[in-house]
Amino acid sequence: MEDIKKVNADRLFERILKLANIGKVGDAGTHRFALTNIDKEAQTLVTKWMEEAGMKVRNDDFGNLIGKKEGRDLDLPSIVIGSHIDTVPNGGRFDGVIGVLGGIEVVDSININEVQHDYSIEVIAFCDEEGSRFSDGLFGSRGMVGLISTDDLKAKDESGKSRFEALQDMGLNPKKIQKSVRNKEEIKCFLEMHIEQGPYLEEQNKPIGIVEGIAGPSWLKIRIEGIAGHAGTVPMNLRRDPMVGASEAVVEIERICKSDLTGSLVGTVGKIKAFPNGKNVIPNAVEFILDIRDIDLKRKNDSIQQIEDRIQYICKKRKLNASVEKLQEVEPVKCSTKIVNTLQESNEELNFDAPLMLSGAGHDSMYMSQITDVGMIFVRSKDGISHNPKEWSSKEDIEKGVLVLLKTVHKLADS
Amino acid sequence: MEDIKKVNADRLFERILKLANIGKVGDAGTHRFALTNIDKEAQTLVTKWMEEAGMKVRNDDFGNLIGKKEGRDLDLPSIVIGSHIDTVPNGGRFDGVIGVLGGIEVVDSININEVQHDYSIEVIAFCDEEGSRFSDGLFGSRGMVGLISTDDLKAKDESGKSRFEALQDMGLNPKKIQKSVRNKEEIKCFLEMHIEQGPYLEEQNKPIGIVEGIAGPSWLKIRIEGIAGHAGTVPMNLRRDPMVGASEAVVEIERICKSDLTGSLVGTVGKIKAFPNGKNVIPNAVEFILDIRDIDLKRKNDSIQQIEDRIQYICKKRKLNASVEKLQEVEPVKCSTKIVNTLQESNEELNFDAPLMLSGAGHDSMYMSQITDVGMIFVRSKDGISHNPKEWSSKEDIEKGVLVLLKTVHKLADS
Repeated sequence: MEDIKKVNADRLFERILKLANIGKVGDAGTHRFALTNIDKEAQTLVTKWMEEAGMKVRNDDFGNLIGKKEGRDLDLPSIVIGSHIDTVPNGGRFDGVIGVLGGIEVVDSININEVQHDYSIEVIAFCDEEGSRFSDGLFGSRGMVGLISTDDLKAKDESGKSRFEALQDMGLNPKKIQKSVRNKEEIKCFLEMHIEQGPYLEEQNKPIGIVEGIAGPSWLKIRIEGIAGHAGTVPMNLRRDPMVGASEAVVEIERICKSDLTGSLVGTVGKIKAFPNGKNVIPNAVEFILDIRDIDLKRKNDSIQQIEDRIQYICKKRKLNASVEKLQEVEPVKCSTKIVNTLQESNEELNFDAPLMLSGAGHDSMYMSQITDVGMIFVRSKDGISHNPKEWSSKEDIEKGVLVLLKTVHKLADS
Repeated sequence: MEDIKKVNADRLFERILKLANIGKVGDAGTHRFALTNIDKEAQTLVTKWMEEAGMKVRNDDFGNLIGKKEGRDLDLPSIVIGSHIDTVPNGGRFDGVIGVLGGIEVVDSININEVQHDYSIEVIAFCDEEGSRFSDGLFGSRGMVGLISTDDLKAKDESGKSRFEALQDMGLNPKKIQKSVRNKEEIKCFLEMHIEQGPYLEEQNKPIGIVEGIAGPSWLKIRIEGIAGHAGTVPMNLRRDPMVGASEAVVEIERICKSDLTGSLVGTVGKIKAFPNGKNVIPNAVEFILDIRDIDLKRKNDSIQQIEDRIQYICKKRKLNASVEKLQEVEPVKCSTKIVNTLQESNEELNFDAPLMLSGAGHDSMYMSQITDVGMIFVRSKDGISHNPKEWSSKEDIEKGVLVLLKTVHKLADS
């Protein structure tokens, strides 16, 4: 399947900007939470575009929007393209959206080129990837692979409405969610195009990248305890100050993460709190959260151990006490070698120069990998910014991503 | 004036514990804010004790409670002993109180020994030293030395009542505060006995200490700005993370303060905030407050400069921006050499071994030094704890403090 017509990048870009108006809050970005009327409005528009591309559209009971272009052989599993259209509070225009609308563009291109594959192609907008409303994200993809129980529907939003009720509000039947769980036999592979949300591609001067794996985050709550005291009355050499201990720990975390020369290990302290947090009081405790990720699970775990050892050393030296609590642990996911190879072939044939890279952020692909082969294309993010109204990816970069996606779908659908 | 009768330490200690019951909140310490009914009740009890010691008692219009034992020559200035009886929220029993009740004990001892000095002796309980109610403390002593304007009476407590109204509630006339301002000609010297509120005396195994000077705190708000980013998507080597920069700064602050071998310089970071403070977000900014104190103003200022230089160096290296804002600057105060010498003589004659030391915390003496010679005695604090129900100083230690105070008053009143 060579010399396919180009995708309609102008239309795709117009659609991205149009979708961003649904939930737009002035200059403060787009605010589109899952299973709200705003989300419903967005789904209605996306449904229209899916139908225009020749797809049959439905919602499953997880709130996932699923468009399907049927192949010649309905007994074969589907090639699935997808991402999400919900946003964080005051989010950007591209995060998730380019993967769904890019998927529709792929199907439309296949249509107008009058290509008929044996395999069906589905485009999915997963429900509540961001987790902005009920605080735990990746809901639709977790549901689809069978990881959502009825208990998970009890989570409430800020107004006190449960996810169960919110699903009902959309006309769905949350009691029947198990019927929406899918398996290996139904899905041949899953492809996700997403903005990078980081500065790597920009730094490398590359429009797109091919994702080899997704690093799972571990979140550790580290609490360092010392002895509180008056800022003026306790001499420096008699202090047991957890703020200085915590600061040494943060510096050490950076050093340990930087010592991984592959650049895959990242550690971040974004949240910190001192107790009692008074300007003239030596704190009795300082708490911070370490977010640590690596595509290599062993290296991540070894690094966590190294960090814990280092913190204990610092605390022993300073007569402080440290406790480390694991809040969440997500194992890293490797993308399918077959899919990565196919994406690379497409990239080479198109004379693009997409590098192999890792995803530090979690994506729906992470859960879809539990039932099928997954692959991801990253599109360059201006200044690496995401989850922000300034989020930007250019039409030209997105077009390159869609072209690789399209060629890859053709290859997979023919193989 | 030798061989004076001992002070009545048992009675003094009973009174300290009795006063602590006024405003007592179960096991959670004493909660006695200035110019409240609780404060009024405490002042009534202290007035009674002052009168029993032969003093004439009055309130000035700053709310200071002033007892006066008249000397033979009413044209001479007074020797003033004082501190405060208000507390922080859930405060201890000794902070401030021992200086007022100890002063009464001194006057009582002079009375029962039938000593008549030329100089009058006053005992003052300063109003709102802690600043717990209207958020700026050392009110009574600032007022007495002429630093309170009508504007300062506009500050409101949490219920919305102004200091002006609170003074009126106590039957005072806040419009006439200027008449309560005093000067050099009226006050020969000011003596304050106070708990140390730190661990130095306990560490040195000394019951009491003689204060050479009071370190004034400077408060600096340091804001370090970097570039926010997703915790998973920005490689370590492309980060401009203000949290790591701030952490390096905190470690450097400790190093610089520890490098003062006199032990007088202390620097504390007790308050810190990250923006946006998300567990999976590299912050765009981190703000913290540095409290830095030294009895030596030049050394304090040099150290602040050194810290600022160091922070700029760290930020340059890490491509971060730092801004430093001075929130408050209190100049350190040296106690009067004459008073310190007299306190030392008393100490030696009593065969005590009080070391010379510095006060890291601010006290009413700090402002009284603007109009007169000041001297302070510190009493050992168990575990260095203060502003806490666990605050404790022993009867025996307090007695030693009062004995030095008494002998010093005799010496000054005879000189």
